[in-house]
This record gives sequence, structure tokens and C-alpha cells, in this order.
Amino acid sequence: MKRIALGVQYDGAAFGGWQSQSHGNTVQDELERALREFAQTPVHTVVAGRTDAGVHGLGQVVHFDTDLDRLDISWVRGPNSFLPKTIGVQWAQQMPDEFHARFSAFERTYYYVLYVSPVRSPMLAKRAGWVHVPLDVDAMRSGAAHLIGEHDFSAFRSSQCQSKTPIKHLYRIDVQQHGSFVHFRFRANAFLHHMVRNLMGCLIEIGRGRRAPEWMIDVLASRRRDCAAPTFMPDGLYLAQVGYPEQFAVPAPQTGSVPWSTVWTEQPET
Amino acid sequence: MKRIALGVQYDGAAFGGWQSQSHGNTVQDELERALREFAQTPVHTVVAGRTDAGVHGLGQVVHFDTDLDRLDISWVRGPNSFLPKTIGVQWAQQMPDEFHARFSAFERTYYYVLYVSPVRSPMLAKRAGWVHVPLDVDAMRSGAAHLIGEHDFSAFRSSQCQSKTPIKHLYRIDVQQHGSFVHFRFRANAFLHHMVRNLMGCLIEIGRGRRAPEWMIDVLASRRRDCAAPTFMPDGLYLAQVGYPEQFAVPAPQTGSVPWSTVWTEQPET
Repeated sequence: MKRIALGVQYDGAAFGGWQSQSHGNTVQDELERALREFAQTPVHTVVAGRTDAGVHGLGQVVHFDTDLDRLDISWVRGPNSFLPKTIGVQWAQQMPDEFHARFSAFERTYYYVLYVSPVRSPMLAKRAGWVHVPLDVDAMRSGAAHLIGEHDFSAFRSSQCQSKTPIKHLYRIDVQQHGSFVHFRFRANAFLHHMVRNLMGCLIEIGRGRRAPEWMIDVLASRRRDCAAPTFMPDGLYLAQVGYPEQFAVPAPQTGSVPWSTVWTEQPET
Repeated sequence: MKRIALGVQYDGAAFGGWQSQSHGNTVQDELERALREFAQTPVHTVVAGRTDAGVHGLGQVVHFDTDLDRLDISWVRGPNSFLPKTIGVQWAQQMPDEFHARFSAFERTYYYVLYVSPVRSPMLAKRAGWVHVPLDVDAMRSGAAHLIGEHDFSAFRSSQCQSKTPIKHLYRIDVQQHGSFVHFRFRANAFLHHMVRNLMGCLIEIGRGRRAPEWMIDVLASRRRDCAAPTFMPDGLYLAQVGYPEQFAVPAPQTGSVPWSTVWTEQPET
């Protein structure tokens, strides 16, 4: 029995989220169907991060076990020939038995892409969040700074969240403006259900000047969902990267395939 | 009777091209339906450039005549509330009677966005052309240079083309590489049916090293469609801008809504 890991990208707009549903039309349903077609036997995948309906995957990682003896590259090309064009396997790699797509991961990175314009953009429908009024980017950056560290993030947790603990470690949040776009990058050991969308809702309140940056301190301390802003739209949310221990040599996601990837690659990490 | 011009953007992936069809589901059908809902009377639009199925519009322009007395901004917000999210009116402006969306235009600009990678990109499906082998960008630029000027472009004309003449004036072609993308910009007084996609087919043959840049001279001189390469996919083609005489003060298209717009805005025009 071999353990294989796959890097998977998908346009979340067309799917009802990651996790398999009885009605089908989820990314997991499509991926497992394609793997089954290629392997000619059922394949059960374990995923790093279950994304919601409408959320995109750039650096999603799954693993599965198989008796089949195939080259790594065949696990890319084979399933891809059975997948819709909105889902693609980016790489495949045989892994040691102790690798686990979910439990080995120590870090998740999400991007949120926000389009700021009085008029909505047809080309960005389901690809970017939209705000029709100008935003104070410096204020949003100040607000975000209050979230860094290990906290109880219950104020930003959906009622459907299945996480064992509301305590997560948020390592950093970067906020950058480029033309009509504001780009956000969130890094944490893990995220609660709806956490990034709930953080975005609050950051936009601050960006619009309805709240001061320090309001974020109160929301966080309240640990009450009803103290935070409504959940912001999923359209601009991307699971960008999942971090694993170096020993597994997990390939970096090919984020060069999203046009705004240069926002985060052109500058040195700090 | 007033003449109103509209700037229109659309994601061509979801529609069967611009022009109204009996089965519906074209951009014109959707736009005229939304205008009718808003105006409560049929509205017939005249378009600058009829785009094919799958081709996107960033700077499309239409005009129509109406007896209604509405603020320009109402012709933006009103129809937008009845349009699908993949079509949007960007601006509206009352025009003198002699303005004609098609016949007043003296220049059209198209972008082609090409993604170069061994593995296809789910996020770019229907948004960019895809080539899985590396391309020689300098060779493509040299090949393109042979096309500049006033020529008989019959070799790049589809058999369904309704233009009165195959002679068009190609003002310039720009080719730029940015990471995994190659961006093309074509400017001409007008284009034949499938002309940009047929030019792209030939440029990619040159980029792949299957033909020398000078081959373009022979193809152009042949005036025979069967001497050129096959029509390339529409996915990466964008009608970016339509040029009108200054007196009409037509607003520039809001191309800032496509993430790769900076490719052509960051550098001075030459």
C-alpha cells in the first residue's frame, strides 16, 4: 500500500464546497470520481482544508492510499483527463506512511482578493469580493494587527464549526493595495469555519470608517459572534497554501496561475 | 429622441457571443432584456464590435435611441439591476445624433492573454488561452512585426466573415511576458471575423519554433486561409477598447477590473 499526496486547484464558483454531499457537485465528489475512473477502483481522499461553497483552492492538498503502482506524473495526467476544467491536479508525490494531509499540516495561508469600485466587475464575478465605496487601507492594516497571536477566535466562528477548540494562532495578516484591488493574506496554524470571511467582514467595517481599528480588540475579547460583522461573501477567498514539515518536501502551489499572484511573490518574506 | 451610448463589460464564457440569436443566451439578448425591463419599452442596441462565443468584453460600446428622460447614471444602475453578474454596464452618456457605436469607431484594441504551463489552470479556464510548452517570445514579436500596416488579411479571415473588404490597417501589436503569462495587444482600424484568433494560431506556431518569424510574410502574402495555422481558442480574447473621435468624449473602459490590466497601463504609450 502506498500513500500518495496530490496538489489540487479549483475554481470554487461552480461547486458546493469541498466536502462530498449526497447530491454530488462538490470538489471531493469530482476528484474521487476522476481518481476512480483512472484507478478503476474506489479512492478515498483525505483533505488538508475543507473549503466552503464558492471558496477557491490554489494550494489544496489531499492524500489517499492505493495498491496501484503508477509514476507520480501519471497521478497528475490521469485524473486531469477525467476532471472538469475548473478542477486540476497540479502535482502528485508518493509520501511516507506518516504523512497525513490534514494532521501533518502546521500552517494554512488564505488570500482574500477585494475589488473596490463604484460599479461591479463582470469578469470578477465569483472571483473577488466587491466593495463599492473607498476603503482606508491603513486603518484595516491597524485593525488586523490586533488579531495577531494566539487567541480564542469564537467571535469569528460559525455556529457550524466542528473544530475542537476556538483557540488558533494567527501568525500574520498582510494587507496591500494595488490599483482597484486590496489584497489580504492570512496565515495561521488553522482556521475556524467562516473565520476568514468573518474577519473580512470586520476589516471592511473598519475600512469604511464605520468602526475604529481598536474595535477589533473588543470584538475579539467578546468571544461573541453577534459582536462581529456579518460573514463577508466567499467570492474572493482562496486557500493559497498548506504548510507541512520540511521532511515531506511538499511542492509549493503553482499560484502563478492566478494573475494577482505577483502581489505576494514580488516581495521578500519578513 | 435621445441617443445614449453605454460602455459594457462581460464575461464571454457564459454566452453564445454578442449577437442576438433565436435561442437567446447572447450578450445582446441579455442587455436588451435588461434595458427593456428598466425602460418598460423595447430598446434596440447597435454594437461597436460583435464578439464571438467565449470572447470577453472589457470596453464594448453600444448605442440606442430612446424617448425616455433619465440621468446618465440611471442608465448604468437601472439595467445593472436586471443583468446577470457576468454582464455589467460601466458608464452611460448621452450622445449627439451623429454618434454611431459602430460607424464612428476608428480603432479597436484586443488583448489576448496566454497562460504557459505544463499543467492547465482551473482558475483560468475560459479566461486565458493555454499552451503547455515554452514559447519564444522574441520570435513571436518578430513574427508580429511583419503584420503591421495596411494589408489584405484574407489568410486570417473566417469563411463566415461579413466584412466588405479584407483590407485592414493593423497599427501595432505588443507582446509581453509576465511570469507564466504572455500578453498580446492588437490595435487596428477594424478586424475581420476570427482575425485575432487566427493571428494567435500563427504566432504560437512561431513561438513553439515550428515556423520562423518570416513565415508570417508568406502566410500574409498567400491570402489563403489554408496557409495559416488553425484558429486558436477564444478563451483568452478580450475586446479591450474601441476608439472614437475626441469630440464624442467616450469614457475609457475600466480595464482595472481585470487583474492583468496593469500590464498595459504601467508603461507609457509609444
